Amino acid sequence: MKKNIPFLDLKSINAQHRAELIQVFERVLDSGHYILGDELKRFENSFAKYCETKHCAGVSNGLDALHLILRGFGIGAGDEVIVPSNTYIATWLAVTYAGAVPVPVEPLESTYNLDPALIEAAITPRTKAIIAVHLYGQPADMDAIMAIADQYHLKVIEDAAQAHGAIYKGRKVGGLGHAAGFSFYPGKNLGALGDAGAITSNDDLLIEKVRMLLNYGSKVKYFNEEQGFNCRLDELQAALLSVKLPNLEVETQQRCRIAQQYTEGLQGLPLYLPSVPEGVSPVWHLYVLRSAKRDELQSRLAEQGIATLIHYPIAPHQQGAYKAFNQLSLPVAEKIHQQVLSLPLSPVMSQSDVEQVIAAVKACAE
Amino acid sequence: MKKNIPFLDLKSINAQHRAELIQVFERVLDSGHYILGDELKRFENSFAKYCETKHCAGVSNGLDALHLILRGFGIGAGDEVIVPSNTYIATWLAVTYAGAVPVPVEPLESTYNLDPALIEAAITPRTKAIIAVHLYGQPADMDAIMAIADQYHLKVIEDAAQAHGAIYKGRKVGGLGHAAGFSFYPGKNLGALGDAGAITSNDDLLIEKVRMLLNYGSKVKYFNEEQGFNCRLDELQAALLSVKLPNLEVETQQRCRIAQQYTEGLQGLPLYLPSVPEGVSPVWHLYVLRSAKRDELQSRLAEQGIATLIHYPIAPHQQGAYKAFNQLSLPVAEKIHQQVLSLPLSPVMSQSDVEQVIAAVKACAE
Ligand SMILES: Cc1ncc(COP(=O)(O)O)c(/C=N/[C@@H]2[C@@H](O)[C@@H](OP(=O)(O)OP(=O)(O)OC[C@H]3O[C@@H](n4cc(C)c(=O)[nH]c4=O)C[C@@H]3O)O[C@H](C)[C@H]2O)c1O
Ligand SMILES: Cc1ncc(COP(=O)(O)O)c(/C=N/[C@@H]2[C@@H](O)[C@@H](OP(=O)(O)OP(=O)(O)OC[C@H]3O[C@@H](n4cc(C)c(=O)[nH]c4=O)C[C@@H]3O)O[C@H](C)[C@H]2O)c1O
Repeated sequence: MKKNIPFLDLKSINAQHRAELIQVFERVLDSGHYILGDELKRFENSFAKYCETKHCAGVSNGLDALHLILRGFGIGAGDEVIVPSNTYIATWLAVTYAGAVPVPVEPLESTYNLDPALIEAAITPRTKAIIAVHLYGQPADMDAIMAIADQYHLKVIEDAAQAHGAIYKGRKVGGLGHAAGFSFYPGKNLGALGDAGAITSNDDLLIEKVRMLLNYGSKVKYFNEEQGFNCRLDELQAALLSVKLPNLEVETQQRCRIAQQYTEGLQGLPLYLPSVPEGVSPVWHLYVLRSAKRDELQSRLAEQGIATLIHYPIAPHQQGAYKAFNQLSLPVAEKIHQQVLSLPLSPVMSQSDVEQVIAAVKACAE
Repeated sequence: MKKNIPFLDLKSINAQHRAELIQVFERVLDSGHYILGDELKRFENSFAKYCETKHCAGVSNGLDALHLILRGFGIGAGDEVIVPSNTYIATWLAVTYAGAVPVPVEPLESTYNLDPALIEAAITPRTKAIIAVHLYGQPADMDAIMAIADQYHLKVIEDAAQAHGAIYKGRKVGGLGHAAGFSFYPGKNLGALGDAGAITSNDDLLIEKVRMLLNYGSKVKYFNEEQGFNCRLDELQAALLSVKLPNLEVETQQRCRIAQQYTEGLQGLPLYLPSVPEGVSPVWHLYVLRSAKRDELQSRLAEQGIATLIHYPIAPHQQGAYKAFNQLSLPVAEKIHQQVLSLPLSPVMSQSDVEQVIAAVKACAE
């Protein structure tokens, strides 16, 4: 029996926690306290523990997390920040938002993440930081990136929006660089019921600074030390995330099982499948393959009721938002953007759902 | 029987809607759709109707609303924006956030709002807009402000964070200038269960622009035309606000009744009570009086179990965040900041609660 396979079955994912989410909603509603309270503190503590970092500060979303980290490190006008040419555009937006200039570096075609061998050539006297994105849930090559950063006294900011809980050489992402930005956009591995995000770090001063910046630049009510923003994580979303966090490890294992089933089932086709370097445990936010006939494959799968997405169709340097970069040639990123296709991946997918997708890809990719 | 009177009894205010808020939470949870969907559209339509404007765009909070309006009008680096010297600092923060310079203009001591007679002297060739705050819930003198703006081709942005539903010469705030920013911070007259806000306007182009800017600069998924932000209003908060909006008029009437009771009951004391100009219907977000012995009055009231707040203790130009403005002399704002005190005001307050506050103020103010 064939059924339609959604790209991400968020309804079923959240339905697993239905009773508890409703109970928590009632608790927050009845508390009368909706901003910067105990629910937030509790979630921040749990998430810091989960990421094995000293601190966590809840924020409004993943883009704001990166933006606040940059501001917190004093990075802005006149500064350059190295970013991957292959990423979700929010990585770049955080940099321009802070007033700095993104300097793209190409990824490895094998991992889709920053190629450390290319970073040094992009460093100038204005370079202040590197944003290392753990794209699709797979950690970037952090040892190599940190070594370069140490040499040039650069900050390393992890963009962990897609990589909650991913492991690099025995350590969780979020604590591998100087600070990390997470997104809890509903579709993320850990998703809120609305926009949400967090900053993790072991840097006391940075966390103190971002906590001030996210609350109008104020530590003590009505005293505004700096020109801040309003980027708070609501009590409500924090409390809902606290319900879902304990299940994240199990869901990650389910994602790994599905990814393994895809990789095994799709061998021998004219497709480029994900490859995982030694020492790295991805959390499979997305299962991304590449095909020279990507658009055809996608539409044929759609005919079979298999929903797929493209992460992403247009590279940041080719967007209207970055006109000054439109003439750049970044062939690795461009090729990736032309070929990638993300298969359905919900932790609630059954083995036979996955089999159905595999069968359809086999039928369509040949 | 004396009881403690809280400043704002948010718990009871929201408890009025408890069953319906829970029901709506379940509906949104079960929908599986948490960002930019029908709940948001429904709320935007209702709120536009309520404000008698053509458009409403939900946003993350009041500060972001003002910031996005400024960006939407193309106001940024090199531009000046006239702001009241007497306001919540977020009005100023929106301007610096957009990269522009706030130029403070003193208020009328009688209304606490911008003194239109002083605006012209503050206009320079770099001036692009005036932010008119309807402070404490009372509309600013919009006819005079609009006349000056017309003459100098300036945009007028209403900061209506404290003034949902207030009326100026028969017309609701939100549609009196070129665009308006609202806050639905939980303590506002219309409050969400977390941070939330909205932009209202009759300007089609502005609304199109801010809708793009608040969603990473994107109209169509993955196509980013501009360097945008993430400032969306969640489906959940939109749906919760839709529950509370129909009750706003009744709550405003209750606020008006309480304000009237205060004004009648506090006559003849050495206090400066609020005065309402002809043609203006405030919504009494706050009931703010002034006393030469404000701090003493506040602590004596606290001893009697009456919670008060100061809106605000420190003027924006005297904050650490605005060091370059610290040497400015803005005596009207400074005096106001030294003397104001906000009395408890919850729409759920009983007549006898208000009597108790009046009796306490009488005992403490003499
Ligand atoms: C590396 C990196 N850095 C920073 C960021 C910025 O973080 P942010 O500011 O928190 O967005 C991102 C964000 N990244 C994501 C980005 O990857 C992209 O993700 P996407 O997979 O295209 O998202 P989507 O199509 O909206 O949702 C995925 C699936 O989930 C379904 N869904 C979704 C929602 C919201 C729902 O309510 N119900 C559903 O059923 C629909 C789809 O099938 O677009 C999002 C808006 C960003 O938050 C990033 O990847
Ligand atoms: C003119 C103007 N322009 C732009 C803005 C910016 O809008 P924003 O970005 O949405 O904040 C404001 C915001 N304005 C307000 C500002 O007026 C100030 O308001 P406040 O009365 O000092 O606020 P508060 O003391 O936190 O709450 C008031 C009472 O409500 C109780 N309370 C509060 C909360 C949050 C709760 O969960 N439970 C409670 O019981 C405690 C208090 O007794 O501080 C807020 C953080 C801003 O949002 C403004 O006034």
